[in-house]
Amino acid sequence: MKLAMIYSFLKQDLAKIEDSINNTIQAQHPVLREASTQLLAAGGKRIRPVFVLLGGKFGNYQLDRMEAVAVSLELIHMASLVHDDVVDNAELRRGQPTIKAKWDNRIAMYTGDYIFARSLESLSALEDPRAHQVLAKTMVELCLGEIEQVKDKYRLEQNLRAYLLRIKRKTALLIAASCQLGAIASQAPLQYERALYRYGYFVGMSYQIIDDVLDFTASEEELGKPSGSDLLQGNITLPVLYAMEDNMIASELYELFQSDTENLTPEDLAPVIRKIKASDAIDRSLKISERYLQKAYQALEVLPPGRAKQTLRGIAKYIGKRKS
Amino acid sequence: MKLAMIYSFLKQDLAKIEDSINNTIQAQHPVLREASTQLLAAGGKRIRPVFVLLGGKFGNYQLDRMEAVAVSLELIHMASLVHDDVVDNAELRRGQPTIKAKWDNRIAMYTGDYIFARSLESLSALEDPRAHQVLAKTMVELCLGEIEQVKDKYRLEQNLRAYLLRIKRKTALLIAASCQLGAIASQAPLQYERALYRYGYFVGMSYQIIDDVLDFTASEEELGKPSGSDLLQGNITLPVLYAMEDNMIASELYELFQSDTENLTPEDLAPVIRKIKASDAIDRSLKISERYLQKAYQALEVLPPGRAKQTLRGIAKYIGKRKS
Repeated sequence: MKLAMIYSFLKQDLAKIEDSINNTIQAQHPVLREASTQLLAAGGKRIRPVFVLLGGKFGNYQLDRMEAVAVSLELIHMASLVHDDVVDNAELRRGQPTIKAKWDNRIAMYTGDYIFARSLESLSALEDPRAHQVLAKTMVELCLGEIEQVKDKYRLEQNLRAYLLRIKRKTALLIAASCQLGAIASQAPLQYERALYRYGYFVGMSYQIIDDVLDFTASEEELGKPSGSDLLQGNITLPVLYAMEDNMIASELYELFQSDTENLTPEDLAPVIRKIKASDAIDRSLKISERYLQKAYQALEVLPPGRAKQTLRGIAKYIGKRKS
Repeated sequence: MKLAMIYSFLKQDLAKIEDSINNTIQAQHPVLREASTQLLAAGGKRIRPVFVLLGGKFGNYQLDRMEAVAVSLELIHMASLVHDDVVDNAELRRGQPTIKAKWDNRIAMYTGDYIFARSLESLSALEDPRAHQVLAKTMVELCLGEIEQVKDKYRLEQNLRAYLLRIKRKTALLIAASCQLGAIASQAPLQYERALYRYGYFVGMSYQIIDDVLDFTASEEELGKPSGSDLLQGNITLPVLYAMEDNMIASELYELFQSDTENLTPEDLAPVIRKIKASDAIDRSLKISERYLQKAYQALEVLPPGRAKQTLRGIAKYIGKRKS
């Protein structure tokens, strides 16, 4: 079963949101149009708009209000991807800084800023001060998460708590805010809004942990990149932290990361990745993810029955079983 | 006479805002603290907060509301400076991409994002939807201005209109928004709000034109950088556009910019800069600036007399005469 099947009844509303996103970031501006082509072509699951719309089903669902919020949240997500790309591009093109490459990076950074600004503009159509408060706080945390991620790269002496805080900021809070802002935009009762926030937070945590597990267990075809890419880029994820309880694996990693991490190849890491996969780290990580999913289900209990609630449950279930 | 003397009666309120800015961007986060040290040490005129406070004097001036807006606008300005630095750093360190340098750039980009987010958070304390609409639209234009500036670098075939649109987006609109948001935060009458916006816009245009003139006419000591720096970086400003009506100067510039502009030195540009200074381009630019100032004075006419109006007039007068 495909994820999109689960929320097929939102198809028409999502199409309208997709149009709005495209119109916003393609803009009338030629340079932006160029810079955003890749971004739009890359598509994406538009999972944040889905959560906004579902959140809105527990109040007075008005499409124009839902759209303002959904577009805003997807644009925030896209802007952060653009800025992540600036960082990555800078690495990939290291040593060959053509004028073209630099021009792209500047444009990419300002394009990200532009998309952020458009995101706020979209939200400001809502005329609800609380929406802005929620979004601003989420963005502050998101930025702290990005900074933490850069700081914690290749840093093996970090604990579970640091990892959990990082994925909370990087992923879970934006999903929680999507659910919550859907509720706010539809003026749903506060108890539903709180439940939706909690659901989004737990689902987001689970989602990111599964993502981090799949980076080890999924095939290159499923991932669209070599497995172990996160580790190669220095992202110390939950499976790594668990696997490092084995002293052999820990010392192997310390040794690898002592060399110039910039020049590490997938081949260098292949042996340790095999050991991580063979350890109990994968299963233990999945158990943590499952625990978050259970909490997500529990959070839903407060909500009235119906298709929206059913769909939120379905998405959580899908996340628990997904293979890519 | 120093600029700060003109608005000395705001001193106490400005000190409170300064504290708030420092607390916000220093944060509890060690990496951010490090990254922002330079930013805070650099100081700045805090001219946007001044305009916010003065705008607030035409309504119901409440310091906490004024502070929310003033901090927000100064943070937006600072965030955009941080992002400009990312671009500049990337150039300066070209060819020597140390890990440290790259780490700094990433952190700088995310620090800029973080400051943006904090800016929104500050504004959201106001609980006024219109404030967010004004700020979002201003940010969209600001970003377009940044993109235009990158795109128009070293591009000699641009007209006066492109230049004026660029400085409008880059400088004038944020000053206009500062004045306007001061009025909005104090719930001043709409006619005053409009007048303040117009004043800010005209003063901002004048301010940037004088800035662009001073880059040619001020001494290195006054500027803190070699004169002609803008041109060296490829920024085609008003004096250059006027000077290029002289075919000799135009062809000299075309020739210079045909070579690898990355390697241009101040010495390469010295002869053409001398010619620009000797032409009527400086005087003509100052006349345009003066015309904007006159419009700024006119915009003030609607406002009721008093110290705030007097101060706005004083600032405009100062801008027209400033030497650095």
